[in-house]
Amino acid sequence: MSLGEFDLIARYFQRPAGTGPRRAIVGNGDDCAIIAPAAGMQLALSTDTLVEGRHFLSTVNPARLGHKALAVNLSDLAACGARPLGFTLALTLPRVDEAWLADFARGLLDLADEHDCELVGGDTTAGPLAIGITVFGEVPSGQALLRGGARAGDDIWLSGHPGEARLALEAFRGNLHPPLGSEAFEACRMAMECPDPRVALGEGLRGLASAAIDVSDGLLGDLGHILQRSRVGADLFADALPCSPWLLPRSRAEQLDCILAGGDDYELLFTAPPAHRAAIGVLGASLGLPLTRIGRTRAEPGRTIWPSGLDAAADGAPTDAGRGQPLPDRWASFDHFKAGA
Amino acid sequence: MSLGEFDLIARYFQRPAGTGPRRAIVGNGDDCAIIAPAAGMQLALSTDTLVEGRHFLSTVNPARLGHKALAVNLSDLAACGARPLGFTLALTLPRVDEAWLADFARGLLDLADEHDCELVGGDTTAGPLAIGITVFGEVPSGQALLRGGARAGDDIWLSGHPGEARLALEAFRGNLHPPLGSEAFEACRMAMECPDPRVALGEGLRGLASAAIDVSDGLLGDLGHILQRSRVGADLFADALPCSPWLLPRSRAEQLDCILAGGDDYELLFTAPPAHRAAIGVLGASLGLPLTRIGRTRAEPGRTIWPSGLDAAADGAPTDAGRGQPLPDRWASFDHFKAGA
Repeated sequence: MSLGEFDLIARYFQRPAGTGPRRAIVGNGDDCAIIAPAAGMQLALSTDTLVEGRHFLSTVNPARLGHKALAVNLSDLAACGARPLGFTLALTLPRVDEAWLADFARGLLDLADEHDCELVGGDTTAGPLAIGITVFGEVPSGQALLRGGARAGDDIWLSGHPGEARLALEAFRGNLHPPLGSEAFEACRMAMECPDPRVALGEGLRGLASAAIDVSDGLLGDLGHILQRSRVGADLFADALPCSPWLLPRSRAEQLDCILAGGDDYELLFTAPPAHRAAIGVLGASLGLPLTRIGRTRAEPGRTIWPSGLDAAADGAPTDAGRGQPLPDRWASFDHFKAGA
Repeated sequence: MSLGEFDLIARYFQRPAGTGPRRAIVGNGDDCAIIAPAAGMQLALSTDTLVEGRHFLSTVNPARLGHKALAVNLSDLAACGARPLGFTLALTLPRVDEAWLADFARGLLDLADEHDCELVGGDTTAGPLAIGITVFGEVPSGQALLRGGARAGDDIWLSGHPGEARLALEAFRGNLHPPLGSEAFEACRMAMECPDPRVALGEGLRGLASAAIDVSDGLLGDLGHILQRSRVGADLFADALPCSPWLLPRSRAEQLDCILAGGDDYELLFTAPPAHRAAIGVLGASLGLPLTRIGRTRAEPGRTIWPSGLDAAADGAPTDAGRGQPLPDRWASFDHFKAGA
C-alpha cells in the first residue's frame, strides 16, 4: 500500500468537523488521542479482533462487518455497565477496495454514532483482513459490573433469546436438516452479522446486577466465567430458557445446543439478588427487551441443568424435590473454537 | 485453537499477584479493564499493529518481537509526552508454540516492567501472525506534545541517530554493496528489532518542545506531518544531521537515504523555541541521549534541504547567503510502504 492509498483509507474514517460526538481533545491524526475522563468516573477498556475466516465469512456484507466489529466491543462495555466514549481501529487489509471501505466505514460509524462513541485513532496495515478495535467507556467509580460479584442464592438472568447466531452459522455450513426457511435464515443471519450490543441494559443494571458477562462464547461457557470468579455454582432450568421463534420448529436437542452453547449472540447474562426482581422487570420493560430468569446460583460448585423447577429453586428449596433428574450435561466439552466458529 | 490452548496462551501473559505494576483496578480477565486516571491528568491512547512479513520478518527472535510490538506503541506515548500506564494485547497466532510464546511474552513484559506499564487486557485469535497493541498513558492536562504546535522560527531537533534500522533492512534484502561487516550488521539489526522508545525524553520535553512526533516512517515523512499540522515550512541542513557510526563508512547518498527516509527508528523529532536550547541541552545530557539541532521552521511552506548553514539560519538570517544550493530533494516520493518495509 502506498502512502497515497494510506491517506485514502484514512479519509473514509474521518468525519466532517462538527458532526458526530466529540469526546477526544485530540483525535485521529496525532501520535495519540488525548482524553479527559469526567470527575468521579473510571475508564473501562476492552479490545477484540475479528479475523477473516475465523470470526466472519469472506462473503459478509462489509457494512454489517463494520457494525459487528464495533458491536462485539461495545458488548464488552455493556457487560461492565460502562457508557461508551470512543474507540481506536487497527485495520489490516489485503488491498484497497474503495467500495468495500465506504460500506465498512458506514456500518462502523453508524453504530458508533448511535452510541455516541467517537473514533479517536487508528492504524492501517497491508495484510490478511483483520479488524482490531479497542473501545473505552466510563463508569461511575466503584460501580462497574464484574464477573466476580455473584453470591449464592442470586437469580441468574438472560437478555433476549440467544441461539439464532449459531443457527445461522450451521445453516451456512449446511448442517441443518431440514434446512431453514428463507425468512428464518435472513433473521438468524442478521442476528449473527448485525448483533445489537446491550449498552443501555448494561448501564441500567448498575446497582442491580451482582455480576455480568456478555454471551459471546456460549451461555454455559460464559456462565462458567462468572461461577469461577464468584466461587459459586449454578442450577439452571431448561424449561425457563427463552427460545427464539426461529428455533421453535427445531428439535429440542438442536434448541438446547444453540441456546446453551451457541455463541456469538452478545446478549447479557447476569446475576442479581432476588430483591431486585421487580426493578429488573421494570428495566426490561422500559428497554423493550425480554429479561428472563433462567436459574439461581448456589454455594456448591459446578452447574446442574434441570428440566424444570425454577420456582422451587426461587423459593430457596434446599432439596431437588420436584425438579426431576438433571439433564445429561453433554455441553461440557462443546467448544466454540473447536467447532471452528 | 481449543479453549484449553486459549487458557494456556493467557497464562504466559499473567503475572503472579504482587509483581509488576498495578495500574488497573480490574485487569486481565474481566470483560473490560477498569482504570482510574489521577486528578488533573488526561489520558493519551494509541494503537499499532505489527503484521508478519510487513513489519517484521518471520525469522525474528520472538523476545525481540515482543519488545518491539510494545516499543512502537510506547514511542507514540513518548511523542505526546505521556507517561505509560498500561496496554491491551490482541494476539493473532497461526498455531500454539509454547517456546515461542514464552520468549515473546518475556520480551514484551520485560519492556513493560521497565516502563511500569501494565498489561490490562487482551484477546487471542487463531489466524496469520499479527500483534495489535493499544497503549495508554497519562499527561498533565493541557501539556501533551502535539504535532500542530510548531511556530515559524522554532529549532528542529532530533534524538539519537536514525538510519540504522533501514541499513539493517537493506542488509537483510542483500542490497548493500559492499555488505555490512558482522559487527555493524548486529548493531543495526538490534536498532531495527529492539528499538528503545524515548519515553523519558518525551516526558522531559513537556513545556520545552512546541511539537513532537516519533520517527517511524522516516524523518522527512514525519517532519511533513508536523509542518502540515503546524502550517509552517522547514529548512534542514545536511551537515548538521547526526550520522550513526555504522553509517559513516557508507556513501553519502546511502547515508542521506537512511537518515532522511529510513523509517522504523523511533527517535523523537521535535521543535522548540530557540530560547529553550540550553534547557534541551541539559535534558539530553541528563538522559545520556544526543539531541541534535538539524534545522529551523519558517513561515514559507515546504521544505528545503541545504548542504550547510544551520548557524546562519539559527541567527535568523532571512537570505540564503552562505548556504549554497539546496540539495535536489529526491526523497519526495521515497515511500516506506512502496519499498515494502
